[in-house]
Amino acid sequence: MTASTPLTALALTCTLTPSPAESSTQLMVDQVLAALNERGVTGPSVRLVDLDIRPGVDKDMGEGDEWPAVREQMLAADILVVATPTWVGQMSSVANRVLERLDAELSEMDGEGRPLVFGKVALTTVVGNEDGAHKITADLFQGLGDAGFTVPAQGAVYWNGEAMTGTDFKDLDQTPEAVRSTIATMTTNAVHLASLLRGSPYPPA
Amino acid sequence: MTASTPLTALALTCTLTPSPAESSTQLMVDQVLAALNERGVTGPSVRLVDLDIRPGVDKDMGEGDEWPAVREQMLAADILVVATPTWVGQMSSVANRVLERLDAELSEMDGEGRPLVFGKVALTTVVGNEDGAHKITADLFQGLGDAGFTVPAQGAVYWNGEAMTGTDFKDLDQTPEAVRSTIATMTTNAVHLASLLRGSPYPPA
Amino acid sequence: MTASTPLTALALTCTLTPSPAESSTQLMVDQVLAALNERGVTGPSVRLVDLDIRPGVDKDMGEGDEWPAVREQMLAADILVVATPTWVGQMSSVANRVLERLDAELSEMDGEGRPLVFGKVALTTVVGNEDGAHKITADLFQGLGDAGFTVPAQGAVYWNGEAMTGTDFKDLDQTPEAVRSTIATMTTNAVHLASLLRGSPYPPA
Amino acid sequence: MTASTPLTALALTCTLTPSPAESSTQLMVDQVLAALNERGVTGPSVRLVDLDIRPGVDKDMGEGDEWPAVREQMLAADILVVATPTWVGQMSSVANRVLERLDAELSEMDGEGRPLVFGKVALTTVVGNEDGAHKITADLFQGLGDAGFTVPAQGAVYWNGEAMTGTDFKDLDQTPEAVRSTIATMTTNAVHLASLLRGSPYPPA
Repeated sequence: MTASTPLTALALTCTLTPSPAESSTQLMVDQVLAALNERGVTGPSVRLVDLDIRPGVDKDMGEGDEWPAVREQMLAADILVVATPTWVGQMSSVANRVLERLDAELSEMDGEGRPLVFGKVALTTVVGNEDGAHKITADLFQGLGDAGFTVPAQGAVYWNGEAMTGTDFKDLDQTPEAVRSTIATMTTNAVHLASLLRGSPYPPA
Repeated sequence: MTASTPLTALALTCTLTPSPAESSTQLMVDQVLAALNERGVTGPSVRLVDLDIRPGVDKDMGEGDEWPAVREQMLAADILVVATPTWVGQMSSVANRVLERLDAELSEMDGEGRPLVFGKVALTTVVGNEDGAHKITADLFQGLGDAGFTVPAQGAVYWNGEAMTGTDFKDLDQTPEAVRSTIATMTTNAVHLASLLRGSPYPPA
Repeated sequence: MTASTPLTALALTCTLTPSPAESSTQLMVDQVLAALNERGVTGPSVRLVDLDIRPGVDKDMGEGDEWPAVREQMLAADILVVATPTWVGQMSSVANRVLERLDAELSEMDGEGRPLVFGKVALTTVVGNEDGAHKITADLFQGLGDAGFTVPAQGAVYWNGEAMTGTDFKDLDQTPEAVRSTIATMTTNAVHLASLLRGSPYPPA
Repeated sequence: MTASTPLTALALTCTLTPSPAESSTQLMVDQVLAALNERGVTGPSVRLVDLDIRPGVDKDMGEGDEWPAVREQMLAADILVVATPTWVGQMSSVANRVLERLDAELSEMDGEGRPLVFGKVALTTVVGNEDGAHKITADLFQGLGDAGFTVPAQGAVYWNGEAMTGTDFKDLDQTPEAVRSTIATMTTNAVHLASLLRGSPYPPA
């Protein structure tokens, strides 16, 4: 892959709602992917609840496990977006399972002893009709950083309504300006950082 | 149910390891259930990874979902034990799914407007070959408290080895004395509290 | 202390705003104390930022440390309310310091080997103009549970505005009904539980 | 500042132990600074408990507040190391206060509307005689990322002993190899990333 190949992205949508139903998490992912696209980065989203992602901490949990195919897409992308709803103040069990499966990357090294995902950049999005986004962002940053991803400055976007009111992001009349400008910043930073790290990878320690 | 019926317990074992393989999480659950048993409380554990527990926030996610049967066992028990391993510093995706499914209890009320689980007592156990137990305990206490469970004083037990060494609880020569005495305290307190709340339920607000 | 002595409470207000300035955290504390009062429990709040609470994990950090006096009030009360604002998704450093100082209680035992705070009930309140309440509640429940407090069913109240909008609780036209009813439930449950545990303390393990 | 000026670092040591007493947190900071030094980056550590860092979310809390001087050092450095002990599973109140004070950076912009700390790289270190490091790392990553710092791949190191055993990092016979190699990786990555971002700053969004 040369420095001139365009950067690509993959978004893991961790909503609990199977396709094709509307999802606030998917809506925010679509906005992040559109912003990446405006900055020259293309790539799809995968709604993981539609697939059979097995519990476990190996890269392949065997017959029927659909994580290995998702993992191939992830390894081919420069930017990973992990997107989750908020339930009981926590990320969805689907997002938690992504972190669990990423545990396997700790023993997947290149020829220089660096994790395969070193050099990849991660972004996070969290929506909820209840509070929890800062904490979920924290948990995701730690898990993704541990696995070997780099999170750019202000690499997270979130939205939740007023406490205990139950409004959904997908039911807003329009995307709040604060969400819009956060997405602009995070995607600008992600593209810049992924481009720098593609051109100049982390050296062996 | 009269005050003289013995108290019962249910343990939800959230290991990623299907039966019948050995599991550190299961081993700690067995020790907690044995300690409850010594205090007159009996009840089984369920290894949830063996079942088809669907993602979602309804009490029944439809055809094939095995949560409703687990939920019936939970509603019949006085003490709930939630037991999880630690992966990437987080609870397992199986434990996270338990919290997710408990979200439905927020709209399941008795005739007095109290959640059905009010009056039930919860305990937690966390094992890991890496650090994370305090945080997972925090997340579980909050999710269980929100749903309507009461956690007794010092209602948690955990074990993890020295940082980045990878030892498993099930591979220890013997259970550390600190784990043993914590289990004694937490089960003593749980039985006491469950007994008080059975005799004198929370009044309507 | 006999079973017929009225229950008392103490609220630790962990706002960053010194007295006498208005504080959203203080406002919510006042509402919780009023609700306890309606249920026959009286007690003051202490705004800790007005005092010199030293960093450290001993019960007395020496000359000038004002924690020992607060601790005496805490040991005399049946119900402890810990109230914090939300900054950067975290509890205030003042609230964090309360947990830090409570660490000392792990070695403060009665004649039966039980922590001195066993039998006391804790409640939490969190306000913020940004998201964070579920996570802060989790951290507080864990720290307070570890120290030996019991948290009743649904023993937390919180409020935060819509993401990134910056509204303060104290600037709302009126207290939202959801906050009001949560306070009713949590105080009802706290008084019930504190009364049960006063009458029938946790036995030695 | 030209691309050829050597990179500099600042470590904020958030131990509860005032100088000159020995501190596990300080010991780990010294190891991280030594590793940075081997990679051509120099800079001091500041033990914050020795200073009067006021609670608050302004960049200057007035007369006597010693944060503004620390902040100047931070703004002059390319790499920030935040180092905390673990108490009750949480970062110290001193570290929490650093996050609190960094909240002010959200409104401190350069002429292009970018936070002043954009382009700076952050690392974290956590030690404890009890579990908590993954969670504290998560909280720090989120707070530092929010403020505008970039955390490199695997930008954290930690150590804690076996659960409930009470061993201190400073009392180990030698630094575990896993800690040593993690420090090598995190400092290699931090220097690489800080150098890239110095040469090519995040563009305006």
